Amino acid sequence: MARPPADAALAREVQDRLDHLTKPPGSLGTLESLAHRLAQVQGTSRPRLRAPHAVVFAGDHGATAHGISPYPSAVTAQMVANFVAGGAAIAVFARTFGLELLVVDAGVASPLEPHPRLRDAKVRAGTRDFVTGPALTRAECELALARGAALVEDLARGGCNALVLGEMGIGNTAASALLVHRLAGVPLEVAVGRGAGLDDVGLARKREVLARAAARAPDARTPLDALAEFGGLEIAMLAGALLALPRTRTLALLDGYVVGAAALVALQLDPAVADACVWGHVSAEPGHRALLDTLGVRPLLDLGLRLGEGSGAALAWPLVLAAERMLNEMATFESAGVSGRTVS
Amino acid sequence: MARPPADAALAREVQDRLDHLTKPPGSLGTLESLAHRLAQVQGTSRPRLRAPHAVVFAGDHGATAHGISPYPSAVTAQMVANFVAGGAAIAVFARTFGLELLVVDAGVASPLEPHPRLRDAKVRAGTRDFVTGPALTRAECELALARGAALVEDLARGGCNALVLGEMGIGNTAASALLVHRLAGVPLEVAVGRGAGLDDVGLARKREVLARAAARAPDARTPLDALAEFGGLEIAMLAGALLALPRTRTLALLDGYVVGAAALVALQLDPAVADACVWGHVSAEPGHRALLDTLGVRPLLDLGLRLGEGSGAALAWPLVLAAERMLNEMATFESAGVSGRTVS
Repeated sequence: MARPPADAALAREVQDRLDHLTKPPGSLGTLESLAHRLAQVQGTSRPRLRAPHAVVFAGDHGATAHGISPYPSAVTAQMVANFVAGGAAIAVFARTFGLELLVVDAGVASPLEPHPRLRDAKVRAGTRDFVTGPALTRAECELALARGAALVEDLARGGCNALVLGEMGIGNTAASALLVHRLAGVPLEVAVGRGAGLDDVGLARKREVLARAAARAPDARTPLDALAEFGGLEIAMLAGALLALPRTRTLALLDGYVVGAAALVALQLDPAVADACVWGHVSAEPGHRALLDTLGVRPLLDLGLRLGEGSGAALAWPLVLAAERMLNEMATFESAGVSGRTVS
Repeated sequence: MARPPADAALAREVQDRLDHLTKPPGSLGTLESLAHRLAQVQGTSRPRLRAPHAVVFAGDHGATAHGISPYPSAVTAQMVANFVAGGAAIAVFARTFGLELLVVDAGVASPLEPHPRLRDAKVRAGTRDFVTGPALTRAECELALARGAALVEDLARGGCNALVLGEMGIGNTAASALLVHRLAGVPLEVAVGRGAGLDDVGLARKREVLARAAARAPDARTPLDALAEFGGLEIAMLAGALLALPRTRTLALLDGYVVGAAALVALQLDPAVADACVWGHVSAEPGHRALLDTLGVRPLLDLGLRLGEGSGAALAWPLVLAAERMLNEMATFESAGVSGRTVS
């Protein structure tokens, strides 16, 4: 992921500004890297974050019938209601940090009450059971990808240039584990974790179920094949959203394991997506750390979070905001009349 | 530092609330620990952060004559002017995150222009050179401690219950290295780092100078003796501020190496200070990580920062704010009508 900056002249311009700000060169560490990333995404040495949104993609998973989550599928729709009502963690954090919250029904099993914060993009009412057959058809996958991309384009037309990306879907760490196993080569025993909190018995059951699913579709090795085999719709729509980042000059802060799995799909379809992504945190779900290591990326936060929803990405948002403000608002040695170095 | 909660009944009350919020138990990781800390500091299961201030203590160091920093002493006063004018990193971050900025002249060498954001608490115009003799008298030390405590008491009377603590003082990573070496037993070669950016020659010189200073005062082993021998005034005033935290029920977010050295002094004077401290980040200065390891504490952020000023603590502030909002604003499973666990 250590891709050279797309615009080397711009990188020099940004570095020159960073080195003139009233701080020892390099002393703001990762914040300086974030400033570079933001400048490259926006194509200017004075990037500005505008109308940031936290977007949560929701979908259900047919495989939950196998007891792969401690919570029933109904919780997906209940949590969507909790998001738009403002009581969920992502809603609280978005409100705290000035992020506009938008929830997208990518494929929730039950019908949802309309709400101003809810976008209906439902492709189908949940995926099929990936243990017995493909979770999605290729056409459903492509529709979800297209709808994810269209959403980002729509937000960009409205003036938004920064996203905090999250998801909700009972069972979706299972689909993510299959994608990470298949597409990143992470062993299944590392890729499969406790998700929302399975105990040892539940974890063993989840491992066994996912081993059967992986064995059922040994030839699904391209990102689209794996996505169709294992789902889910919120993951596909996230991948589509990520694919639209470069052309809309939008920066995205990525949440945990499930968003990471979607990013893996998107990166394999278009490596340029990496330039527009900031990895918000590393989750307590062990497969997430393995995925980040495989991709060679370092997340901003490591706080033992394992909630999803975009909560970890939202918590990293202030760092991105601070990087932008640093670049735009800090004084230079010259403007502030501060002396430079005199000793080696 | 893993002290049991002072109020076990309160801890149970907080844990009960955390476990009823609409998230899998424990899934917000470190944020849940922060909520506990905040509750204990304020003595209530519904703590509220009020009138948070970023307080930067500034002071000069006589030992800068030995070339232990790449920047001249004059930069301390110049940066104080940059703080109150709003152009320094801490000023930008404080503004971004809604922290009231206050700069305290603990012992800047030159006179400072009055400013509404600047508090004059100058004990003397810089410390004496710790290479040739004690940096401070015991009386100067005690005056600085008392003034630091009085400041926190004054802020608390004004309604403030949360602080982001920082410092400014050319040469103060040198004083900090001596304190961390002497009081935490960290070897001098680990405790001494590049500070604001010394090159290899400068680092070797700093090591040699500090070895002489340490050898001059081999018997200064109590926190107050070491503080008097090595300084500085901003460190002493920070230690005094920290000592006032428990009795004012104020939470403090600690910045990097220099604030860490002040915390070391305060903790050795009163271990209860630990209960009111949140370690904001681990600095790129190697002695800081060694200090945190010695104290057994884990910082919130690890972003390669080495600026000081309180910048790293300010960047961690949104996490503390998010923890408070989580505790106060998240819905419960009952209130949101979300189903609980059904599978192991």
